[in-house]
Parts: sequence; C-alpha cells; structure tokens
Amino acid sequence: MPDLGEEAMDHAVALARKAGEMVREALQNERSIMCKSSSVDLVTQTDQKVEQLIVSSVKEKFPTHRYPFVAVSIAFAVNKELEFGVVYSCLEDKMYTARKGKGAFCNGQPLQVSDQKEINQSIIATEFGSNREPEVVDKIFSTMRNILCLPVHGMRGVGTAATNMCLVASGCVEAYYEIGIHCWDVAAGAVIVSEAGGLLMDVDGGPLDLMSRRVLAANNKTIAERIIKEIEVFKPTRDDAPMDK
Amino acid sequence: MPDLGEEAMDHAVALARKAGEMVREALQNERSIMCKSSSVDLVTQTDQKVEQLIVSSVKEKFPTHRYPFVAVSIAFAVNKELEFGVVYSCLEDKMYTARKGKGAFCNGQPLQVSDQKEINQSIIATEFGSNREPEVVDKIFSTMRNILCLPVHGMRGVGTAATNMCLVASGCVEAYYEIGIHCWDVAAGAVIVSEAGGLLMDVDGGPLDLMSRRVLAANNKTIAERIIKEIEVFKPTRDDAPMDK
Repeated sequence: MPDLGEEAMDHAVALARKAGEMVREALQNERSIMCKSSSVDLVTQTDQKVEQLIVSSVKEKFPTHRYPFVAVSIAFAVNKELEFGVVYSCLEDKMYTARKGKGAFCNGQPLQVSDQKEINQSIIATEFGSNREPEVVDKIFSTMRNILCLPVHGMRGVGTAATNMCLVASGCVEAYYEIGIHCWDVAAGAVIVSEAGGLLMDVDGGPLDLMSRRVLAANNKTIAERIIKEIEVFKPTRDDAPMDK
Repeated sequence: MPDLGEEAMDHAVALARKAGEMVREALQNERSIMCKSSSVDLVTQTDQKVEQLIVSSVKEKFPTHRYPFVAVSIAFAVNKELEFGVVYSCLEDKMYTARKGKGAFCNGQPLQVSDQKEINQSIIATEFGSNREPEVVDKIFSTMRNILCLPVHGMRGVGTAATNMCLVASGCVEAYYEIGIHCWDVAAGAVIVSEAGGLLMDVDGGPLDLMSRRVLAANNKTIAERIIKEIEVFKPTRDDAPMDK
C-alpha cells in the first residue's frame, strides 16, 4: 500500500521534527534534559500523546543532562515487516529517513554505507549498555577488547543506538553491534542501514530478530563476519517475552 | 598583551573556520577523508602552509573515512601559558572559543560545565586510544571497567579529544580523561574547559602537564576525585622527550 506508506512516513517525519524541536527547546530553556526518547510506539499514538510521552519520559529519565545525541526514532511496520524508518538527531538537526526499496537519506541527501573491506581500517561503534551485572560487563568488555585488538582503526560510542546505526548508514563507521538494546532503539535504524546498502543480522550471524535485543549492522559481509567471530554472545530477556505479572 | 592576544585569537578563529570549510568541502566532494587535523602548530605558520598541512595530513592519515567528528584545534601560548583556545567541530559547524579570563563560548553562546556532583548520574568520556600493546590495553580496559561499575550513568567516546573536552565545557558530559593523547589534542580544549568553569589535572590528581600526554577534565572536584581513584596510571613517552635520532 504505497500511498498509505508514504502518507504515514510524511507524518512520521513531521512528528519527529516536532518532537525534536521540543527537545531542543527544552534543552535550551532549561539546560536540564538529555539524551533519549524513542521508547514508545509513536506511530500508534496521537500527536499530543506522543509529545507528552517524549518530553515527560526524557525529563523523567534524564533530569540533569544535556548530551548532544538526542534522537527521535520512529519505525512503521505492516504485518511485522518494516516499511520505513525515521531518525531525527535533534541537536545536530539531521533527519534520517528510509523507506523500503526507496533508499536512505539524511536531510534529503542519499546515504551509502562505507565500501571499506579491511577490518584494520575500520571504525566500529558499540556501547557499554546499561546493564552492570559483572558477568554481562565481563562479556561486553571481552568482546570490545577482542575487536579493538584485531586491530581495528578505532572504536566509538556516541551513546545512542539510533545514531550509531545512522553512522553506519552514512559510511561514517563500518559497523555497529550491541547486545541489550530494545526493538524501539533499532527498528528505524534497521531500515535506514538496509536502504543505505548495509547488512543487518543477529550478533551470532543469523538473521536479525528485532525482539532478541541483539543487533549487528555492517557495511558489508566481510566486515560483519570478521566482527561476529569476536563477539561473546549472550541472551537478554526478549522484548516479546511474556511479562511475569 | 591584550591586543595581540585578541588579534591572534580572531586570526585563529578565521583560520579554524577556513580549515573546517576545506575539510567539509573535501568530505563532500571526495567522500574520502576523515577525522583529524590539528597536529601542527597552526598559529606559527602561514595560512597557506596550514591549509596544505591540514588537508594533506588528513588525506594521508585517513584516506577512506568520513567520521563526523573532524575538529580543528588551535591553542596559543605566551611563555608557556595558554592564552586562548579555538576548537572548530567542522561537520557540526560548532566554533568553540575561550580566552584566559574571558569565558568560553560555542558559536557565541557562553558555556558552563555541568553542576552534577553524583558520580552515578554522570557521563564520562574517554577513548580506547591508538596504542594496541597488550599491557597498555589492559590498563585502559581495567580503568574503563572500574569507572563504568562505580557505577556511572554512562560512558562515551566520540573519537576526538578536542571534541570530548568541548563536551565537558558544554556540560554534556561530566568528565573526560585519557592517557596517550598529545599536547596538540588538548591544549585548546584545556582553555575552553577551564573558562567554562571546569577543572584540569593530571590523571594522578597532580597539576595538568601538557607534555605528559595525560589529561583529566572534569566539571568539579567531587567528580574528578572519584574518577582519579579508578584510573590505572601509566606514563607514555612525553611530548617533550628528546628524539632518539
């Protein structure tokens, strides 16, 4: 349904921009907010609800920070198939958009992943995540060290899964991996990476499972396979696991 | 000499902007350059030499990348005392400036470090660095893990010392530390952090020594002291060490 898809995407872009403006304003006026929003199924809500949700959740979660990588991330799926993704990096004012089969764009300019095939010339993005359990931290550090010492050219972590995925789509980094993210962190970015010519998969090399809380986004198969070998895989509780209570 | 200082700073700002424009243009036209310049004593050179140096050194060092945190970093010292610092984050188009005793600014807006005193609400920036010797990597990872598990709210590394220091000055992160950077990476950022109300010191808590290749920039003493306890200190070859040949 191309028309509905296009209309929905236009709506999402407008919504992301509006949400981004609010975040930016709040940051300027209050100097007291920070770095995430995104953790709601935006498209199914009314505009007002979305605005309230974004602003209040950001305020609640990060009352005192103003790290610059605030991103609004919106994905739209039909029958569990992703149709489009929109990521708005508020403070940089970068609007990333991608629609299935139509390419990926940043502020209207087409995006293309890096063509680098040498792992030692590559920059890899990842995050420490929010889990501080020693055995999880062990695996995260062990993986990082394995990858750093391949060696790679460098490792980065700007702090936001959606932004990291857009860096892959833009060819700024070769790959991004993380275990522990949620579907709302990466669904939009997945469309953008894929439409920019990149690959998406599970960190064990299998197909991407959006509910598994694991993601690897890479510019090509060579880089992806080299990284997968180094990842100490573990399984967080799935996003679609039944709730205990 | 206030007049000379002001004139020199204006010149540095213009130079940084020009260099930044060139880097940005090169990135757009060639899609084939990347993330550093800065490793030259810019103020003592002629404009043209600077331009050639920046562009050719960036091209040589990073022929195939386009990571967004390209920064031009210029510091000016008189009798070994820093007079001003200019950091231009090219792709974000952010011009950070600070002059001793006159405050720090980003695109003309005054900067102020974060007032956060709770380490577990803090974001700490650092980098893996370029050294891949196992014993150095051991210490870097060990320190990161100590700090992550204090716990802190998060850790980040955008990839550029100058940009990390500007994040401290802007209140976006509470602190940045690194062992292995060079004086040209941090001299300009040091003025900016200091003029934004932040602290600069050695990673062992002593006074900052620009030639020691070690730096800690923090929003306040509470956060600085908490971090210092966790850092596994080591001594890279100093920037002012006599050359072997």
